[in-house]
Amino acid sequence: MRLVTFTPRAGDGREIGDGRGTTRVGALVEDGVLDLSDALGVADLTELLRRDLLGAARDVVARGGGSVRSREAVRLEPPVRPRAVLCIGYNYRGHTGDVPDPEFPDVFVKTPNTVIGPEDRLLLPPESECVDYEAEVAVVIGRSCRAVTPATALDHVAGYTIFDDVSARDWQGRTSQWTLGKSFDTFGPLGPALVTPDELGDPQVLDVELRHNGRLTVSSSTARMIFTMADLVSYVSQAITLEPGDVIATGTPQKLPEALAAPAPLADGDVVEISITGLGTLRTAVTAAPDPRGSGAPR
Amino acid sequence: MRLVTFTPRAGDGREIGDGRGTTRVGALVEDGVLDLSDALGVADLTELLRRDLLGAARDVVARGGGSVRSREAVRLEPPVRPRAVLCIGYNYRGHTGDVPDPEFPDVFVKTPNTVIGPEDRLLLPPESECVDYEAEVAVVIGRSCRAVTPATALDHVAGYTIFDDVSARDWQGRTSQWTLGKSFDTFGPLGPALVTPDELGDPQVLDVELRHNGRLTVSSSTARMIFTMADLVSYVSQAITLEPGDVIATGTPQKLPEALAAPAPLADGDVVEISITGLGTLRTAVTAAPDPRGSGAPR
Repeated sequence: MRLVTFTPRAGDGREIGDGRGTTRVGALVEDGVLDLSDALGVADLTELLRRDLLGAARDVVARGGGSVRSREAVRLEPPVRPRAVLCIGYNYRGHTGDVPDPEFPDVFVKTPNTVIGPEDRLLLPPESECVDYEAEVAVVIGRSCRAVTPATALDHVAGYTIFDDVSARDWQGRTSQWTLGKSFDTFGPLGPALVTPDELGDPQVLDVELRHNGRLTVSSSTARMIFTMADLVSYVSQAITLEPGDVIATGTPQKLPEALAAPAPLADGDVVEISITGLGTLRTAVTAAPDPRGSGAPR
Repeated sequence: MRLVTFTPRAGDGREIGDGRGTTRVGALVEDGVLDLSDALGVADLTELLRRDLLGAARDVVARGGGSVRSREAVRLEPPVRPRAVLCIGYNYRGHTGDVPDPEFPDVFVKTPNTVIGPEDRLLLPPESECVDYEAEVAVVIGRSCRAVTPATALDHVAGYTIFDDVSARDWQGRTSQWTLGKSFDTFGPLGPALVTPDELGDPQVLDVELRHNGRLTVSSSTARMIFTMADLVSYVSQAITLEPGDVIATGTPQKLPEALAAPAPLADGDVVEISITGLGTLRTAVTAAPDPRGSGAPR
């Protein structure tokens, strides 16, 4: 299954209602989005996972229950609203092989204000001169777990999606801890859909590609990961009881040599497209944010 | 006002109901806890802040509306349930003065699974050999804000409370990022009460003391902070739109020389008491957690 959280659109393309309060859950099907909310009684995918309704969703999809909305009639939201996005630093072997593998995954957190969906815009803050993208597989937790072994870790995974760990490199490098440079509002595009493990197959053989304004700047494979997704879920769960809807972003491959040689920070009007085998494409439009400095007004 | 989130206890000391679903909001008064939930229609302090009801709470307290419960009839919960706890690294000048001040606050995040209340137990995970405490003032955001200046930052603060940034030093030191060593379940005691700014007065002249099993190991003053609380709220808000209930933990003073000379990791049965002028005492009982390794069962 390819599950999404969405907001219905009116016939003229306007969203209906106020966004989060009116979200629904659906499954991507050939002719659009099969609406699962009425059948399951849930408003978003995080709630579906918390209530352990993946099996029930599968039954509804199998019998074709629920109405099908056209793709144009829905606005895709972030598939889940994680409490936090747990991210991994350096986790792909480069092509030169001259860096020793780290002993432990380097874990950091992005705050929940970062998470946006595939139809939201990434806002470039006026406070940074150097905003950069990263192309990552996101693991979405399906069942609560603590201190699981790598052998059983993936039993607790609901599925996979795509994440862009957007980073203000100037802010990230100011201090020893990267958090703030990673946590600007909208710095976490997530989606488009949660793809279940049975649908995806082996998660460690996926091609990961990123195009910045059409130019290929990242091209690698999850086969090059230092710590597998099972390793990462297990490791993080040694400290944190993982809950349904939690996201572990599994690190980005290095950029291609030609992209490293000619750094191009994100700019107003840019488009970032991350494509991962089986997970589809997460396309993000980039816009300069209005300068909020000194306003202090509630937004 | 000193505001708390609590769970009512039955006459025999048992909690009533299932915890979070039955929490209420109160104000600490001379003879107990004035229950504000019926008057305000909110179940916890985070909701009270989101609905901007601090002024209404003040009115109810002023007219003595609501019933008073005895202190024994309530179980104090974490005053707020933050989306994330934004923490600051080194932020107190030591007594030797030989370390230059950092240029920027070093911000990191503790995940929400860390947060416990003053009557919860801090669980020592079997995975760590070296769990340590820290004594911090926690700033609680009252009104949404982004990119505020230091001059206006505190206008967006609902109040202050006490936080213990518990850290597994062995895990913290494994990698460049401290997150996982800081984010074990229960590693964030918070409370006992949210003290409003009018009640507290100047937050930069507070004595901060910590006693580990009765022994004074931290003794300093918020006057020794490198970045004031106004600086920190302003700085974090340059990146993150702060929301009601968000917590910024403002860093810990160094331990006293005699405590640094004789490190004493937390052990089963220990008691940590943090006392800060005007904020009261946050007392935390420490217990060895059962070893969850390999269980993988939902908890």
